[in-house]
Amino acid sequence: MNPETILDSFASGKISREEAVSLLKRSSGFEDLGFARLDHSRKHRRNGIETVFCAGKTKEQLVVICQRFRDAGSGMFGTRASQEQYEFVRAQIPDICYDPVSKVLSLPSPNQEPAIGCVAVCTGGTADIPVAEEAAQTAEFFGAKVTRCFDVGVAGIHRLFACLDDIRQANAVIAVAGMEGALGSVVSGLVSAPVIAVPTSVGYGASFGGIAPLLSMLNSCAEGMSVVNIDNGFGAGYLAAQINRLACKGKTSL
Amino acid sequence: MNPETILDSFASGKISREEAVSLLKRSSGFEDLGFARLDHSRKHRRNGIETVFCAGKTKEQLVVICQRFRDAGSGMFGTRASQEQYEFVRAQIPDICYDPVSKVLSLPSPNQEPAIGCVAVCTGGTADIPVAEEAAQTAEFFGAKVTRCFDVGVAGIHRLFACLDDIRQANAVIAVAGMEGALGSVVSGLVSAPVIAVPTSVGYGASFGGIAPLLSMLNSCAEGMSVVNIDNGFGAGYLAAQINRLACKGKTSL
Amino acid sequence: MNPETILDSFASGKISREEAVSLLKRSSGFEDLGFARLDHSRKHRRNGIETVFCAGKTKEQLVVICQRFRDAGSGMFGTRASQEQYEFVRAQIPDICYDPVSKVLSLPSPNQEPAIGCVAVCTGGTADIPVAEEAAQTAEFFGAKVTRCFDVGVAGIHRLFACLDDIRQANAVIAVAGMEGALGSVVSGLVSAPVIAVPTSVGYGASFGGIAPLLSMLNSCAEGMSVVNIDNGFGAGYLAAQINRLACKGKTSL
Amino acid sequence: MNPETILDSFASGKISREEAVSLLKRSSGFEDLGFARLDHSRKHRRNGIETVFCAGKTKEQLVVICQRFRDAGSGMFGTRASQEQYEFVRAQIPDICYDPVSKVLSLPSPNQEPAIGCVAVCTGGTADIPVAEEAAQTAEFFGAKVTRCFDVGVAGIHRLFACLDDIRQANAVIAVAGMEGALGSVVSGLVSAPVIAVPTSVGYGASFGGIAPLLSMLNSCAEGMSVVNIDNGFGAGYLAAQINRLACKGKTSL
Amino acid sequence: MNPETILDSFASGKISREEAVSLLKRSSGFEDLGFARLDHSRKHRRNGIETVFCAGKTKEQLVVICQRFRDAGSGMFGTRASQEQYEFVRAQIPDICYDPVSKVLSLPSPNQEPAIGCVAVCTGGTADIPVAEEAAQTAEFFGAKVTRCFDVGVAGIHRLFACLDDIRQANAVIAVAGMEGALGSVVSGLVSAPVIAVPTSVGYGASFGGIAPLLSMLNSCAEGMSVVNIDNGFGAGYLAAQINRLACKGKTSL
Amino acid sequence: MNPETILDSFASGKISREEAVSLLKRSSGFEDLGFARLDHSRKHRRNGIETVFCAGKTKEQLVVICQRFRDAGSGMFGTRASQEQYEFVRAQIPDICYDPVSKVLSLPSPNQEPAIGCVAVCTGGTADIPVAEEAAQTAEFFGAKVTRCFDVGVAGIHRLFACLDDIRQANAVIAVAGMEGALGSVVSGLVSAPVIAVPTSVGYGASFGGIAPLLSMLNSCAEGMSVVNIDNGFGAGYLAAQINRLACKGKTSL
Amino acid sequence: MNPETILDSFASGKISREEAVSLLKRSSGFEDLGFARLDHSRKHRRNGIETVFCAGKTKEQLVVICQRFRDAGSGMFGTRASQEQYEFVRAQIPDICYDPVSKVLSLPSPNQEPAIGCVAVCTGGTADIPVAEEAAQTAEFFGAKVTRCFDVGVAGIHRLFACLDDIRQANAVIAVAGMEGALGSVVSGLVSAPVIAVPTSVGYGASFGGIAPLLSMLNSCAEGMSVVNIDNGFGAGYLAAQINRLACKGKTSL
Amino acid sequence: MNPETILDSFASGKISREEAVSLLKRSSGFEDLGFARLDHSRKHRRNGIETVFCAGKTKEQLVVICQRFRDAGSGMFGTRASQEQYEFVRAQIPDICYDPVSKVLSLPSPNQEPAIGCVAVCTGGTADIPVAEEAAQTAEFFGAKVTRCFDVGVAGIHRLFACLDDIRQANAVIAVAGMEGALGSVVSGLVSAPVIAVPTSVGYGASFGGIAPLLSMLNSCAEGMSVVNIDNGFGAGYLAAQINRLACKGKTSL
Repeated sequence: MNPETILDSFASGKISREEAVSLLKRSSGFEDLGFARLDHSRKHRRNGIETVFCAGKTKEQLVVICQRFRDAGSGMFGTRASQEQYEFVRAQIPDICYDPVSKVLSLPSPNQEPAIGCVAVCTGGTADIPVAEEAAQTAEFFGAKVTRCFDVGVAGIHRLFACLDDIRQANAVIAVAGMEGALGSVVSGLVSAPVIAVPTSVGYGASFGGIAPLLSMLNSCAEGMSVVNIDNGFGAGYLAAQINRLACKGKTSL
Repeated sequence: MNPETILDSFASGKISREEAVSLLKRSSGFEDLGFARLDHSRKHRRNGIETVFCAGKTKEQLVVICQRFRDAGSGMFGTRASQEQYEFVRAQIPDICYDPVSKVLSLPSPNQEPAIGCVAVCTGGTADIPVAEEAAQTAEFFGAKVTRCFDVGVAGIHRLFACLDDIRQANAVIAVAGMEGALGSVVSGLVSAPVIAVPTSVGYGASFGGIAPLLSMLNSCAEGMSVVNIDNGFGAGYLAAQINRLACKGKTSL
Repeated sequence: MNPETILDSFASGKISREEAVSLLKRSSGFEDLGFARLDHSRKHRRNGIETVFCAGKTKEQLVVICQRFRDAGSGMFGTRASQEQYEFVRAQIPDICYDPVSKVLSLPSPNQEPAIGCVAVCTGGTADIPVAEEAAQTAEFFGAKVTRCFDVGVAGIHRLFACLDDIRQANAVIAVAGMEGALGSVVSGLVSAPVIAVPTSVGYGASFGGIAPLLSMLNSCAEGMSVVNIDNGFGAGYLAAQINRLACKGKTSL
Repeated sequence: MNPETILDSFASGKISREEAVSLLKRSSGFEDLGFARLDHSRKHRRNGIETVFCAGKTKEQLVVICQRFRDAGSGMFGTRASQEQYEFVRAQIPDICYDPVSKVLSLPSPNQEPAIGCVAVCTGGTADIPVAEEAAQTAEFFGAKVTRCFDVGVAGIHRLFACLDDIRQANAVIAVAGMEGALGSVVSGLVSAPVIAVPTSVGYGASFGGIAPLLSMLNSCAEGMSVVNIDNGFGAGYLAAQINRLACKGKTSL
Repeated sequence: MNPETILDSFASGKISREEAVSLLKRSSGFEDLGFARLDHSRKHRRNGIETVFCAGKTKEQLVVICQRFRDAGSGMFGTRASQEQYEFVRAQIPDICYDPVSKVLSLPSPNQEPAIGCVAVCTGGTADIPVAEEAAQTAEFFGAKVTRCFDVGVAGIHRLFACLDDIRQANAVIAVAGMEGALGSVVSGLVSAPVIAVPTSVGYGASFGGIAPLLSMLNSCAEGMSVVNIDNGFGAGYLAAQINRLACKGKTSL
Repeated sequence: MNPETILDSFASGKISREEAVSLLKRSSGFEDLGFARLDHSRKHRRNGIETVFCAGKTKEQLVVICQRFRDAGSGMFGTRASQEQYEFVRAQIPDICYDPVSKVLSLPSPNQEPAIGCVAVCTGGTADIPVAEEAAQTAEFFGAKVTRCFDVGVAGIHRLFACLDDIRQANAVIAVAGMEGALGSVVSGLVSAPVIAVPTSVGYGASFGGIAPLLSMLNSCAEGMSVVNIDNGFGAGYLAAQINRLACKGKTSL
Repeated sequence: MNPETILDSFASGKISREEAVSLLKRSSGFEDLGFARLDHSRKHRRNGIETVFCAGKTKEQLVVICQRFRDAGSGMFGTRASQEQYEFVRAQIPDICYDPVSKVLSLPSPNQEPAIGCVAVCTGGTADIPVAEEAAQTAEFFGAKVTRCFDVGVAGIHRLFACLDDIRQANAVIAVAGMEGALGSVVSGLVSAPVIAVPTSVGYGASFGGIAPLLSMLNSCAEGMSVVNIDNGFGAGYLAAQINRLACKGKTSL
Repeated sequence: MNPETILDSFASGKISREEAVSLLKRSSGFEDLGFARLDHSRKHRRNGIETVFCAGKTKEQLVVICQRFRDAGSGMFGTRASQEQYEFVRAQIPDICYDPVSKVLSLPSPNQEPAIGCVAVCTGGTADIPVAEEAAQTAEFFGAKVTRCFDVGVAGIHRLFACLDDIRQANAVIAVAGMEGALGSVVSGLVSAPVIAVPTSVGYGASFGGIAPLLSMLNSCAEGMSVVNIDNGFGAGYLAAQINRLACKGKTSL
């Protein structure tokens, strides 16, 4: 119940003052599973689709979560699911989808809208593709058309220039790179759309698990770029889809 | 000269093949001052306004840069200018503007468009205001209306809730916070617009000059948030203005 | 022998001056097993219950330690025990207890007092539950009633508000969170009891194994909060039980 | 207005449903000064006394804040105030108090209750005294009697033993130490009260501004200890006063 | 050949000037195995015993090295040898010795002198024993009598005091501790002999693989202590044996 | 097509102005495999040989890449290939070469030129050999003669002096060392050729995976030395081959 | 009173059992100045000389401390004293001594013994001299003859070899170096005496205030070396004097 | 005296065997000033020019050093000299030269050879110029012609392309950049000469004093690049001059 309804019930005498106070404090909009509290109130803001971080959840927990979302008639979007988690869930929910490259586990929303606009996803190298695919599939799931442009790192910058016309079509650009992470700066200096940089843990030695590209991207001298966590393709894809929707539809909630 | 013009000049015999090759390679769009190369080609993408990072430039260099922009008929937007730099420049260019809180040094563009849409700028505390003002004034300079909402940190979260209606009007939200930097996550869980988090160096001890809020913001469990460098109000303001323009006008270059 | 007894023995001529000096220096209150020195003098301060950090001990060492405590008629509380350690010990000591989620290995004390007061244990997410359970079971073992409130992280802060009435009953609150670790600050701003924050290693990338929430919690702008080591549920649970006992019984040793 | 009052006003027809909804959302309990939002609702939880982090605030802002608290008839407790800030404020508010060692700036509360219980504050060395005094004066301001025990670091551990009887009287012990920060562990192994460890930035070289004692304290093998930020005497003093009050009065809000 | 011999040979005409120059440059004192250069000249300084860091060497390389030392009639002392390396070497060299706790692989020297003096090896906990044993066995191999005093960490400091008489007999004390690493400081404040502190990687979370005790030990406020690398029992044992020999025999090379 | 050819085609009417503009923008010189863009334009600069970072590529991707290079008639040089990758590729491309020590996977170039000049590769210890071999084989593949000088670390510096005459023949010296990484400084103070230092991850504890030698090498007080990434034998070998070629042939592209 | 005296007084009836217990607990051996507890019991172990870390103490505190030591008839040895502290103390205690290079402030002990043995102090460069002098003067104050050997860093290693004969006379060698800190390893490989390495904060950039040489020294592959804190000349000098005394006099307390 | 001369003197009876041994050990090639040992033997390898790191030396020391070099008839090259040092030295040595941008203090060598070849020095921004000038002037002093190409950072990469023809003429390229440090990678992918990357401390926040560009450059995916210390223009310039000389003259010592 939202505050308006609670107040009306109180004014009409259907509920007591104590009940009204209690309800106002508890109009929570979530479902308590004991080990998790499903945030159904997010659904209003996010196009009928929930997201789940699968790593660190037991297989049994994941099945319960998926069932609740399916039973609630909404889609589900899960990241960092293992092959083992997928197979366990599939035994219970046969229509679950899984992509082994991006580790995305998902249930399509029954009332998915057609994709709009354009988000470009670039990578510095081939080894960045799993993170880039997580970003791309997230953006697609949340309503954006996606252009992929992989292996265009700065060591051979002519490869990037060949893709520039496509990238410049996008409302938001995602630059995924490990090692020195220079792709974000270079792209951001060449396009006018917002750029979301994703450092990856690709590399070795003084890459320190992605610290090198993370710092590189945070210190970019190019305007119009921001950064998400190391390997966080999901975060970049979600944000790009938000911006893409704003560009296509103006101020409306994702 | 752009490639098309060069080709036409070559085809019409106005220039030789050697000249055409040379021009194609050098159609640079910048002005070389020796110590700096002014990037006039950015002007096309960015609404006729250039940006200058004033820290680390000598007073003499700064005067030359300002004069070139003024002579070129464009505005200028400078960040991190000291009081001393300002006074030196003002002696040469009396119409230069300076804000001592945000350290912004600027020349208004002669053909500035009216502000549109809405960007919200929030801070966790009072000490974050200089960074927040840099963000707000950047967003304003690049065409956005700005709502300020200062000192709404999570230690007294009811202060944030009282501003939520205003914040939810914005096309992009900037969350500026030092210390534990939790503001970004909390805001991002409460609004549907993209959130740009700016960690600040406010704090002491294990804040480590802003590392604590930087890491906190990068690890946010709330979707729809990205991060810029510590104390980088400019970066956040510029990016928010880009997104705001997309939301108001669709896909057009800032 | 305590100093008083030694002095009396000396005064009555039962022991020589040399013996008395030696005994006074050695009135140690521990038992030397060669590889470990069991601290039986802690028993006086801690309600008849010893604690053992099981990780890094061999199975054989662990059995000996458990047997000594059982033979001494006291309970035992062990943390970070592996399934393999448990099974090895159980073969020798059938009444040993083990919880695979929290990794707690314990022998109930024969003269356990009834639980008192209230300690609240909150988590940001589902993946933080193992650490939270270690905290909760520790607090229970050392005499506190415990209220669990899991998955109330700041990305959906309304879930936390729905639990606030319960949390506010507690004499001490434990906030367990990984990723950005903002839960501690938000809770601490909402309750008047002391808050013990436990950063967890849940997360990836720039979480750096728990550094992000650790720094976030150390830099909290909310009063009344302190921090224990990453993943140290035991430390938080023990401290909360101490505070809970103080609140219920005044100044008495745990 | 609290929710109960708002509901009664609505039921009695004094306010409309829209007004009631708006009031319920905005029953904020703070005062907006533009650059700061004074959290008067904290007053209920904290014995009529507000706290202000003075560093990073302008002298003018600080005067306004002090005047508001004085006008509201409540005391004020400010930390990290400079001599310059103090002198500026004193020119406006002559009864302001300042301690140059701890940098505490305060206005006594008109209805301060008598001090109760006992908090012990220990330091490893002489150079830790400024942080220890911030802790001690905070605990005193928030209602605790305080025992000081300075320069009892582990390099000459017999000095600590001579104070043990006094320290063992305390309901909470604060251990302030820089360099290797071992004081907390040693004290915690010797007393039954909760120990709050405060690492200080005293030291040089591999102390890294307090990282060494911070890590040392977080990794303590002694139960019953928690840690606050480097040099955060205030946080330790406030928390100790909370625990002391619990021990003396049972569950009551500070 | 040493320089004296070379000069004599040259003066007597046995070798030419060119040969002398070449020999003087190459009087190297090592044996080149291709993958390793055995430093036989160290033998003069070190009592006829060579040391080998076994980790990172192949089993085949290790066998060759052991054979060369055995054939040269000297002993060998190897650290960080795996069980697998041991078994492979034993198949070739049956009289090789191995201790699975300390991972020491050794060949006794045929002309080992009797042990002298005293080195004390203390640990904070049981999990530090493998490192402590590496230290103890190194000191023994290089000629020192060793007193072991394990599990005397500062959380129950009375256990340390009970061993003090023994520890004070030693010419050098080795303090091995993980977690907060306070043992070194406490011991160093209680004895007059040099103390060599060995941080261990025992611990979790903010121990960061031994950084916490390493920093703690480097910042000790107690005089007369120095530090070796994390888990470097060998280095501490070797140095303690050097000091022990100096104390027993005055200035003589080990 | 290079710009000259495109311009000629346009001037002669073979292609339209639009085609010319498009070609000028896209004269890219790479081949797009979807997951990778092979940089054939590098071939001109690098003696007909391509390099591939094999780690992080799937076996299937690696086979396709190798086939394309073989089909293009050029050699290939791959680093960090696993035994498993090698065996999978060999099943398709029987003439592929693999060295299990250095993990180099390669196809000789059909028109490989004879090796010239001299590059010296030194190591501090035996465990540094895999990195040193990667460097040595890289330098050889790109045309340099290589002198190996292993296990000459500073703990027994006379071993280095015995090799000095050989090292001083080289046009470029590669110093590979872990642990304290002092080899680079010592060598650089003794030779006149450029020294390329390669820190390795050999070591333990405070080596921190190679940070210790990396910092040591970056801070060298000896002139004429530069540093590559931890364990980056390839980078050092390639650079040394470049310098060697310059010394032998003057300014020519590798 | 020592335990023996207390026991005798009790046995003879001069003091009661309660008094005896109290005295036994408090036979502390220090003097409480309020802000500091002077550790006079150290005097027995340390040749009648106390040490004071002057940084972080007020001038007034320092005067009181010096006066107490002078009045007690013992010498005093203070480190890191500023010129300003010295001048303030000298106004009260005219015979105080000060060395501006090493920042040592001292009062000679009335019964200083003649210097014995030999300690060698080496530096890598000229800028390391202040730290080296602190070490040298400490060793001298605590009874050792000292040989200085400055500016013998590894960039020109022949300078070190020219000093080797002198260095090899020493019972303990102190190696002081910043930047890459290789001096310790090289020296340790060339001498048979224990080497104490002192990293200094000399350097810039990736020296990180001494982290580079600290890590380098901790990871030394040369046996017989240990490390003290960055810039801790005092610690090295004190330890070297301990070892020197052991070598000269056998097992006697410093 | 070199070994040959010593041997001849011995053989001819001019010196005794003891004298010969001593001379052979001491044929050092340096001059001992007490606080410094001038490395005259470097002169042979380095074109008659010595280098001095001026920071950390007293003015008096610097004057002595300059005088010795002048008296020895050689030039001198000093880095990081302050204006104050310069003025003090000039009072004694009027022909000393100083450049306030690069902080280079120098005495031209009387027999300086004409500059040869080409070294290119690029910077990302204007604030990097002081470091770049140190590099450029070092390369010039050690015999190279230098091309400067400043402010060509990746945010406006067309500025770099306009300089490419000039940069490609160079035998060695120095890329100086702060912030994200991407310049090195981009340049290295575009030229065939060796690239020496110099990270600078230009930037703020997560630049961490140059760590960001340092890591970025170490992780470059472009072949043919190596890195020197943060702000180490001298090191890059010296190395570039070495390589330039090799390219021009083949294998000859600098």
